Amino acid sequence: MSVMRYRAVVDVLLKRSILDPQGRAVEATLRRLGNDNVSDVRVGKRIELVLEGERAEVERQVREIAEKVLSNPVMEDVEVSLEEA
Amino acid sequence: MSVMRYRAVVDVLLKRSILDPQGRAVEATLRRLGNDNVSDVRVGKRIELVLEGERAEVERQVREIAEKVLSNPVMEDVEVSLEEA
Repeated sequence: MSVMRYRAVVDVLLKRSILDPQGRAVEATLRRLGNDNVSDVRVGKRIELVLEGERAEVERQVREIAEKVLSNPVMEDVEVSLEEA
Repeated sequence: MSVMRYRAVVDVLLKRSILDPQGRAVEATLRRLGNDNVSDVRVGKRIELVLEGERAEVERQVREIAEKVLSNPVMEDVEVSLEEA
């Protein structure tokens, strides 16, 4: 149970069933610029943070932060990854 | 040279040397909520897109899109990854 530093990455994207206006705007721009092979553009957030602690506890904590603070579970999906910093 | 569908992920974050006010605000909030083991919070964008084409050409194209359209190279770092969709 050693205390370590971990780098967590939290990716937050709108659920697939919800219209993503920012993604649509980027897609329209890319196509206007000639990228007509581009589709399904989605724009979300990437949050990086460093946490100190014991791995299992840090995993639990960052998942709670991701679901309760950094995302809106009604509209957004969230993915968490963790590595030693 | 087969035509395939690829899913690209473009992560855009402010360069380390540039103050990230949104990250600072999130960090202050997390600490106020009792997460005093959290530091170095950074907030960026994650853009997902699907491209059709031949792999080498799609790689070149998505890198150009990432650097010229989706990020500001003066202030931001960008990372690209690609996988078969």
